[in-house]
Formats: sequence, C-alpha cells, structure tokens
Amino acid sequence: MTGLKIDALTNNASKKPLTVDTVDIKQYLLNCQNRVNHVIETHLPTRALSTTLQEAIRYATLNAGKRIRPALIYATTQALGGDLNHADPAACAVELIHSFSLVHDDLPAMDNDDLRRGKPTCHIAYDEATAILVGDALQSLAFEVLAAEPCHSTPNEKCRLAMIRTLATAIGPMGMAAGQAIDLACEGKTITLSQLETMHALKTGELIRASVRLGALSAGCHDPKILHQLDEFAANMGTAFQVQDDILDIIGDTNVIGKRAGADAALGKATYPALLGLQNAQEKAQTLHQHALEALAFFDHKADPLRHLSNYIITRTY
Amino acid sequence: MTGLKIDALTNNASKKPLTVDTVDIKQYLLNCQNRVNHVIETHLPTRALSTTLQEAIRYATLNAGKRIRPALIYATTQALGGDLNHADPAACAVELIHSFSLVHDDLPAMDNDDLRRGKPTCHIAYDEATAILVGDALQSLAFEVLAAEPCHSTPNEKCRLAMIRTLATAIGPMGMAAGQAIDLACEGKTITLSQLETMHALKTGELIRASVRLGALSAGCHDPKILHQLDEFAANMGTAFQVQDDILDIIGDTNVIGKRAGADAALGKATYPALLGLQNAQEKAQTLHQHALEALAFFDHKADPLRHLSNYIITRTY
Repeated sequence: MTGLKIDALTNNASKKPLTVDTVDIKQYLLNCQNRVNHVIETHLPTRALSTTLQEAIRYATLNAGKRIRPALIYATTQALGGDLNHADPAACAVELIHSFSLVHDDLPAMDNDDLRRGKPTCHIAYDEATAILVGDALQSLAFEVLAAEPCHSTPNEKCRLAMIRTLATAIGPMGMAAGQAIDLACEGKTITLSQLETMHALKTGELIRASVRLGALSAGCHDPKILHQLDEFAANMGTAFQVQDDILDIIGDTNVIGKRAGADAALGKATYPALLGLQNAQEKAQTLHQHALEALAFFDHKADPLRHLSNYIITRTY
Repeated sequence: MTGLKIDALTNNASKKPLTVDTVDIKQYLLNCQNRVNHVIETHLPTRALSTTLQEAIRYATLNAGKRIRPALIYATTQALGGDLNHADPAACAVELIHSFSLVHDDLPAMDNDDLRRGKPTCHIAYDEATAILVGDALQSLAFEVLAAEPCHSTPNEKCRLAMIRTLATAIGPMGMAAGQAIDLACEGKTITLSQLETMHALKTGELIRASVRLGALSAGCHDPKILHQLDEFAANMGTAFQVQDDILDIIGDTNVIGKRAGADAALGKATYPALLGLQNAQEKAQTLHQHALEALAFFDHKADPLRHLSNYIITRTY
C-alpha cells in the first residue's frame, strides 16, 4: 500500500493539507470520512424548527457510515489533478442521498430492517413518519448543497447544474428508485443472473457511477474518453461492491457489518452467492475488480487511491 | 372577471398562443392545467424499467389536481412581462414536488388518507413501498427537470441554479418537511393560533411562496423591492389558502373536494375554524386576501391573474 499519496486531502475543519506521504487505504478512507463528516455537519440544520426531525436527521447522517461514495468522489478528483475543495459539495450531497436511501429502504414497508451501521434503524429509533420525512428532507438538502451560491472555492454554475443533473438522474425513476422497485417486486421470486445484475445496476450501481462522474465534474473534466474510462471503472467496481455486499450478508458477522446478517435470505432475496455459489461469487468480485483496474490502465499514479478503493471494496469485511 | 388577459398563455402541445382576450379564472386555471400537464407528460419516464413504479408515478401526477402552484408561477411570470416558456420547467417541477408531498403525507404512518383528488390514494391503489418510492422519485425528477440542459427557450444556468436553491430550501429540513413533522407532533394536542400559523407557514406556505418566487425568477426578475412585494402577496395568499382548506374540511363535500371531508377533525388536528370558529375563519381568509391584493398595489393589469387567483383561493369549493 506504499505510494498512495493523499497530500492534498485534508481531514479537519481548517482543511489543513495532510502531510503524510504514505498511508494505507483504511487511513485514506478515515481521512475522507473526517473530511465529508465536517462538510455534512456544516450543512445540517441548526435552528430547531422541529427538534425531532432535526435530531433524526443527525442520527441518520452523522454515524459510522463508511463514506465509500464520498471517498470515490475525492479519489476521482485527485486522479484528475483537481482541487478537493471543489469536490466537497458533491461528496456531501452523495452521502446525504445515500443516507436518505438507507433510511427509506429500511422502512417496514420496504426491507423492514432494524439494524443499520450498528445502531437501530431510523424508524426504530424514532418512528416511521419521522423516518419518511428524514429521507425526504435529506434528498432536498443534497440538492440544496449542490445548488448553493458558488464562491471562489467551488465549481461554477454550469458545472453545478451538470452535477445536479447527474445526481438527480441517477436516483430518480430511471435510476435508484427503479432499482428498489424491481428489488421489492423480485422478493421471493426466482430471477436470473441477468435480472439480478440489472436490478443492482440501478439500485446501487447508478449512485456509485454518479459518484465517480461527480468527482470528474469536480475536477472540471469534460473529456469524453476519460469520462468513458472512469465510467467503465465505476460500473465494474459498483457491481463488485454489490457482489461483496451479498457475500457479507452470508459470511459476515452482524456485529462487524453493522446490519443484520442473513437479512437477504430471510426476505427471499436473490443474491450473487445464491445464484452462483459462494466461491464463484468471490471469483466474480475479483474479476470485476480486475476489469475496474484495466479501465484505469492509462491513468498515472494519481489514480492509485481509486485503484486501492476498488481493492478495498472486494476485500472489506463490513 | 373582465380584463383578465392571458393572451400569452398557451394550452396545448404546440404552444399556440391563446387568442381570447377575456376569460374567467376557472378558464385561466384550466389553461394552466393543460399547459403544465403537457410539460409534466414530456418529463415522465417512458422506458419501463419498473412497470409498477412507472404506472404509479403517472397515477400520482396525471390526475385531477388543481395545479394552483403552476398557475401561480405562470401568473407571476406574466405579471412581470416574462416569457411563459421560461416558466414551464418551474411549473412542472413544483407540481411534481406537490404530488410527491401528497403521496407521502397520505401514507398510513403519516395522515393515513385513502382518498385524494377523488381517487384512492397512491398506497391504496398500489402499496406502501411503491408510494414511498413514487414520492422519492418525483422529488428527484423535479430537480432533474430544473437542471435539464438549458436551451434557447429556457432560463440560463445562473437562474436555474437559483430556482433549484429556492425549491430545495422551501421543501427541506427548514421548510415543508419541518412543517409536516410539526403537524404530526401536534396531532391530538392543544396548540395556539400562533403555533398553527408557524406549522402551516412551513407545511404549505413555503412551497406557495417558492412558486411565486420561481415565477419571478422565470421572468428574470432580481429587483429586491419587487421580489419583496411578491413575497408579501404569496405569504398572505398562502395562509388564506390553508384557512380555506381547513374550512373546506368542515363544510366541504367529500365528492366535491376529492379527499375525505372531516379528516382533520378525525385525526385531532388543530384547524383555523376549530381555533377561531367558522365565521371568524372565513373573515380571516377574506382579510388575508385583501392584504395579498395590497401587496400588489403597484403592479399593473398584468398582475390581474395573480389577483384573481388569490380571490379564487378563498372562494373555491374544492
């Protein structure tokens, strides 16, 4: 893990550049977590119009989330030599969207989960109505963050509009929402590998691809060839992410993964290990990771964080 | 109702200008409905990734909604001499947001309503999970519409970003979502008139004020004095709208208002007639309407549609 420079990455409120030259990917992720947590904190409401809603929003966002999507944004911006300050709004917005999707997916009418990131899910800690409103408000807040008045340290209007378009398309009726609808419709049914891949490409893949794209936009990149290679990377890595998620649902420990192990099987959900067998699923994750790396073949050392993130995604234990 | 010119308003797909010189407000609203329905139709997903979600989205949006918020946008744009083509994205986006809020507010965990716009609510016609996803997807779609690639007939990037900011702020954790949270928290409790006003200012008022503001942005207006007067108009008219809504919940006919009459009382919700008495509530609506008109005192005849809409809002029977 030597050679992974993140000297441009900052990890505290004053945004002082990190001076370490060599870190492992866990340290890199930790730095991204610290950075995006600080950005999220500055955007959460402070005046208490509804104390319950405000508390529940903080509960659903400021927690032990891995912040993989913000890390992908920062790492993509770095890969293109961009300014990480320009990536902050997108990193924050994507994590707010991810948090909103988890809160809604966990609802009784959806996946009915009671544990998330090692704590009771939002509707258990508060109530269903509050959890619905938390998700709704987090989605609005994500777009508010991206649409904030540009200043010297943020991307220009044209770029921000492209970011909003990218994010909205990724999560809307032709993106994440459709994926969740298909997932629910497939519960307890026998589906093919191809159908499973389509569902995941929408449900989790679109937001991961959007994250990489937002990282590129944050760096001011508009080169179609580079954007295509990054999208190839993101598509493969995004599928690998889901394969590993399914594997962890089987071999993972509830205390480690922070959500209820075996939840997929309990809901009669199709998973990669269920369709392919555990070993083949593990091999598939490895193959997808290799394809992701190949897509970055022509990128220099600045793309190392992206490469290491892809490896982390298929080797993580939570 | 003479003198209400809407010659710039179009009402069909070809956007042919209407040539009528004088119409009543119901015809004006009908024209706005036709116009915004066409715009909404062009933005709804056509490729069926999830047939159920797609159907449910159409069910929740293409219905007998009054389209008062789009009408306010068009009327404000007209009041400032703006181009109605520039107002189409905002009119569409606001109605998508309004539809999303109704679908979520009707959920069992929220107001648990079974009738809306004369039809079974979305979670009754489909199911709860679908209704949650419909709301989520409609919110994303609204921002996607506002962030669409600008063309010659649409506002520029700076203006669109201001629109997104306006809309996101109005519905987020310091706006509509907070209003709904306060509304739920107050169920069955005795609250003061001031608390009721605060709740409604957030729950319905913010989106109405945002509509008028979006109409002004669509017309390219940035004059703080004009924006202030329009906001005064919107704040008074928005409160009048809610007072009339509460009155209709008591004196309205379920078959006419299209939602279950008496629903507020059944949930133990505070209303203006409950706190003030029916007659005082009716007088309050009238007074608010007068204040709304006063805020428009220095606007010329082009603001007549806005004036008539304010009157319609306190005299409507559904």
